[in-house]
Amino acid sequence: MHHSETDLKYCQHLHEKFYGPGSLPGGGVTRLGYSKAEDEMHRRFAELAEELGAAVQTDEAGNTFASCRSGPHVLMASHLDSVVEGGRYDGVAGVIAGLLCLKWAGDDGLQLPLQIGAFRSEESSNFGICTIGSGLVTGKVSGDDIADYPSQDGVAFRDIFSERGYSLHPARIEAPLAFLELHIEQGKVLDETGDAVGIVTDITGFRRYLVELRGSADHSGATPMGMRQDALCAAAEIILAMEKLGQAESVHHSVSTVGIIHNAPNVLNVIPGHVRLGIDNRSTDDESLDRMQARLQDILAEVCSRRAVEYTSEKITHFLPVKLDQGLEDGLAAAAEKLGLSYRRMPSGAGHDAMCFPPLCPTAMVFVPCNRGISHNPLEYTSPESILDGARVIYQYLKENF
Amino acid sequence: MHHSETDLKYCQHLHEKFYGPGSLPGGGVTRLGYSKAEDEMHRRFAELAEELGAAVQTDEAGNTFASCRSGPHVLMASHLDSVVEGGRYDGVAGVIAGLLCLKWAGDDGLQLPLQIGAFRSEESSNFGICTIGSGLVTGKVSGDDIADYPSQDGVAFRDIFSERGYSLHPARIEAPLAFLELHIEQGKVLDETGDAVGIVTDITGFRRYLVELRGSADHSGATPMGMRQDALCAAAEIILAMEKLGQAESVHHSVSTVGIIHNAPNVLNVIPGHVRLGIDNRSTDDESLDRMQARLQDILAEVCSRRAVEYTSEKITHFLPVKLDQGLEDGLAAAAEKLGLSYRRMPSGAGHDAMCFPPLCPTAMVFVPCNRGISHNPLEYTSPESILDGARVIYQYLKENF
Repeated sequence: MHHSETDLKYCQHLHEKFYGPGSLPGGGVTRLGYSKAEDEMHRRFAELAEELGAAVQTDEAGNTFASCRSGPHVLMASHLDSVVEGGRYDGVAGVIAGLLCLKWAGDDGLQLPLQIGAFRSEESSNFGICTIGSGLVTGKVSGDDIADYPSQDGVAFRDIFSERGYSLHPARIEAPLAFLELHIEQGKVLDETGDAVGIVTDITGFRRYLVELRGSADHSGATPMGMRQDALCAAAEIILAMEKLGQAESVHHSVSTVGIIHNAPNVLNVIPGHVRLGIDNRSTDDESLDRMQARLQDILAEVCSRRAVEYTSEKITHFLPVKLDQGLEDGLAAAAEKLGLSYRRMPSGAGHDAMCFPPLCPTAMVFVPCNRGISHNPLEYTSPESILDGARVIYQYLKENF
Repeated sequence: MHHSETDLKYCQHLHEKFYGPGSLPGGGVTRLGYSKAEDEMHRRFAELAEELGAAVQTDEAGNTFASCRSGPHVLMASHLDSVVEGGRYDGVAGVIAGLLCLKWAGDDGLQLPLQIGAFRSEESSNFGICTIGSGLVTGKVSGDDIADYPSQDGVAFRDIFSERGYSLHPARIEAPLAFLELHIEQGKVLDETGDAVGIVTDITGFRRYLVELRGSADHSGATPMGMRQDALCAAAEIILAMEKLGQAESVHHSVSTVGIIHNAPNVLNVIPGHVRLGIDNRSTDDESLDRMQARLQDILAEVCSRRAVEYTSEKITHFLPVKLDQGLEDGLAAAAEKLGLSYRRMPSGAGHDAMCFPPLCPTAMVFVPCNRGISHNPLEYTSPESILDGARVIYQYLKENF
């Protein structure tokens, strides 16, 4: 749809304001959850909301909320952290969309019961677990479970929270009237079909595992091939077996990824003695996740027994697939139609803050396309027009329903 | 053979003196080349040599030498650095053996032309290249070639040398009368055969490669299995192919090891986009090394083309197999026989400082057994009796020939 110069300029203003924190020389950003870069993003969000006349609050998990009205709200929120070497749109686009809706409501003199939120540490990049900020205040994530998880810098989550004066058991968020999140798709569907927005029907479930392999760290020159217990060779077999398993289950919209590998001692003249792997299995079909979990155990047992390598495996995340609210989906679809924007109902292969809210209130998500589906990467890009399209769909829905 | 209480006590004294620097809480040591821990080892070596009345000198690469006489010398030397999480005998045993011989010569009132040396950075753990100290002063390693190599902390070799006042082009060492090195075997042969010493016939050649793989760092949830360019899966195929290649060439006493893997961004929710591998191929047969090199290139081309992953590969070390001196070997064998010690002539699968010296002077090595062949590992162990056996063989040879 056509967007005014004013809207494009304001969208650009928001983008520039959020541009700097965590910027990397080679492009892209690193804004880990509960880092200084993320703090600065929240500070800037508060400033932008105050420019619009909103009152800003922070909760006991460090999440930031802004609203021009008191009382019950529709919460429109996303996150401001990023993966390591990530892009500038994942999460930020949703907060920008919220600020756009807040501004439009002011411009139009509407008393919408709208609150804009920015959650902390949605990405699992810093602590190996996602949606920490939204999870803690909705009860989806337990502070006790994650208290000992170390950050990428090796500091326990508990210590980071304690230093900041946050609480591992923060007060629960008051149930919103509804929860709405705009997010970039992070896949190629909208980019390829040309649809302006996606209306999300469900969010993938996922299970994450840490696997440790212990072989024997011997001299790489003096240890014949037949006398080795090489933990990295065992890891290589597991990596390829998980890839094959993901391919076999892909008919159920399942994927399997080994994203993390730590090798020790990791030098040229020692056979690897200790390897840790981080595995991420996802599906909208919980039975497929069950099969992948069982198969992972079989693979570990078979490979490690054959290679005389010891192993342990731990499931660190188990999120069920989440069905979003049909009524909200229909309302958003009607809004898109009214604006003349093409839309597509679709599942989300990525997890989002939105998955914490269905137990509390009707929850929906709007996807906007991102260039070639590239995300979690410095090349991530979504046009201001696409963000404005998505924000307009949500604003249209809010105007007509609240 | 029987060793006196005095010898066992002095050997224990040397072991305790060298015990502390770089000690790790979980056992073992990390004493990287040109680190503070290695500096402290050299300082202690100098102190121990001065206790024996020796004059101590340091050369322009930081190597340390001790002798009680001026003029041409037989050089008996090894190294004092270690791998990451290594043991306390690799290298140190050879310096201890040198100090034992120096002490015995003094006790016996002999004017042996003996110099004891400790070379710097023999292990490739800090800079990815081995025998730096001995290589620079013999011309085996070129300071220009390695000037830009980064340490594990990311500091260029050039800068480390400059800060310490060392020279990338140090004065060459004066050709010794002969070069002798005692070293732990780092393999299981002597431990299994029960022989007291090994007399080394040749030292393995080795070629080392750095391989970079560049795929696409996409979202692990939103990118279907069929649309991935996963650099870690490509790496896993290469790791297993190199293992298979090492097995196929093992009839030629060849081994192949992938000891290093760096994965980026190395987080749970991003498909690995960039992987670096460090590969170490060794053999006493240069033709086997040629075949392994050609096959590595074929493997890289095949795997990366099939997976649409870009790659580069660089050979960072190319050391030819080295034949040691037959006359010295026979002399050491005769000395072992005279002492009633069983010995075995054998090749060395590991590289050593000794491999720099055959162009300069007759060169030999004596191996002593290490427990279960474990080396480059905190569990590394060699008994004081074994070190004394090896040192006695060398001392007997020196007494009769110089």
